[in-house]
Amino acid sequence: MIKVSILGSGNVATHLYHAFAESNEVQLVEIYGRNPKNLIPFEKEVATCSRLEDLKETDVFLLAVKDDAIEELITKLEHPDAIIAHTSGSIPLSKSAQKNGVFYPLQTFSKDTPVDFNSIPLCLEASDKEIYSVLEKLALSISPKVFSISSQQRKSLHLSAVFVCNFVNHLYHIGEDLCAKNEVPFEILHALITETARKASLNSPKAVQTGPALRNDQKTIATHLERLNEEKYKEIYKLLTQSIQATYGTKL
Amino acid sequence: MIKVSILGSGNVATHLYHAFAESNEVQLVEIYGRNPKNLIPFEKEVATCSRLEDLKETDVFLLAVKDDAIEELITKLEHPDAIIAHTSGSIPLSKSAQKNGVFYPLQTFSKDTPVDFNSIPLCLEASDKEIYSVLEKLALSISPKVFSISSQQRKSLHLSAVFVCNFVNHLYHIGEDLCAKNEVPFEILHALITETARKASLNSPKAVQTGPALRNDQKTIATHLERLNEEKYKEIYKLLTQSIQATYGTKL
Repeated sequence: MIKVSILGSGNVATHLYHAFAESNEVQLVEIYGRNPKNLIPFEKEVATCSRLEDLKETDVFLLAVKDDAIEELITKLEHPDAIIAHTSGSIPLSKSAQKNGVFYPLQTFSKDTPVDFNSIPLCLEASDKEIYSVLEKLALSISPKVFSISSQQRKSLHLSAVFVCNFVNHLYHIGEDLCAKNEVPFEILHALITETARKASLNSPKAVQTGPALRNDQKTIATHLERLNEEKYKEIYKLLTQSIQATYGTKL
Repeated sequence: MIKVSILGSGNVATHLYHAFAESNEVQLVEIYGRNPKNLIPFEKEVATCSRLEDLKETDVFLLAVKDDAIEELITKLEHPDAIIAHTSGSIPLSKSAQKNGVFYPLQTFSKDTPVDFNSIPLCLEASDKEIYSVLEKLALSISPKVFSISSQQRKSLHLSAVFVCNFVNHLYHIGEDLCAKNEVPFEILHALITETARKASLNSPKAVQTGPALRNDQKTIATHLERLNEEKYKEIYKLLTQSIQATYGTKL
């Protein structure tokens, strides 16, 4: 049994807590949160703690706190025997603790949407092999998708995630907005959204690009730009059309 | 039984053919294609035809040809008793035939990826109620998702589809490219892509936006822009970040 304490009470902390609570190989020691109010949802199920000096002994502290708070929190933890691993995509492996690690679940978490950890990739990094093997055991207890990822690689993954998740969701929102303005149910686009995502997991997205930009269908592009009343949407349409055409060498 | 002939031999025609071949309420009369070579894959299973003047009598002609070819083909069809429906998202309902219709399946079709028509929305339009009810019967025989959509609404849907499918796929490609350049398997992002799409069907995308742009996390945004070597990707990053911040009133 690996003893784990979770530091943090937000989305990532909550989802990790639920995943480990179901694992037979992990003993959850406690959940730490600076604000006792945020610990109320956990109190009935697990020990909680709101003062750093009261933290119990454990094998691994998992830090699921804001990026800006990570380094300070690590320096305040006086548990040299424990592994201290953060869960952030953009913060490098720390050098402040004796045993440093990273345990980064690459997924978009919402408070109210349950997630199946079995499909979530866990990106691990550690300051030595022994630490890595503990984190790997911990990771494999909740997901089969475990990857050894360096700080540099993790930064690239985090950046890529902004494109394929945050920016993609904004394009969904633009589609939703255009539908609303023209009194069409956005629901009609759900199947297309799902299928486009499914295709990207089966093929290289580069190989399955479709649409007027790729076909260099100037007539449709002109009609679309004319229909877009919002300047912001026009700019996005133009820039992404140009980028597709540059990628595939389509003549403008 | 509704008698249907499909005019065209590309992706949409092929997928419609397979869907109707399994329907008990439809009798497939024949597949028409100008180039006999393109009809070879169909020949063993259904009658084919490569001369317009040889087309047999039918209840519905479904035109799955290129947008530019639709109007000319309609004027050449000398079958005043048959409904002539095209399958395009961007072309308005024709006025050239006696019985005009639109039968638009809103999905991204690839030749080699089988699709389940049960989940595909079919957007219908017709020049009168009687024609609509025939097209509706035809549509319901392959999918429960049937919508009455005007030419104006269909244009908006088609434009929205460019954002949520074509442009989204291009962002997937950028993520893939960034991964390749930094030696990270793109596979690690599959779960995120799937979950982001799933969330968009459960909630309003506007309500589930996440990421550095929304949080106005200037430090991460600056680091990301620094990491992006390609000018094109930098521009897209900046424009979409600005658009997210304008949407949510985040201060720049």
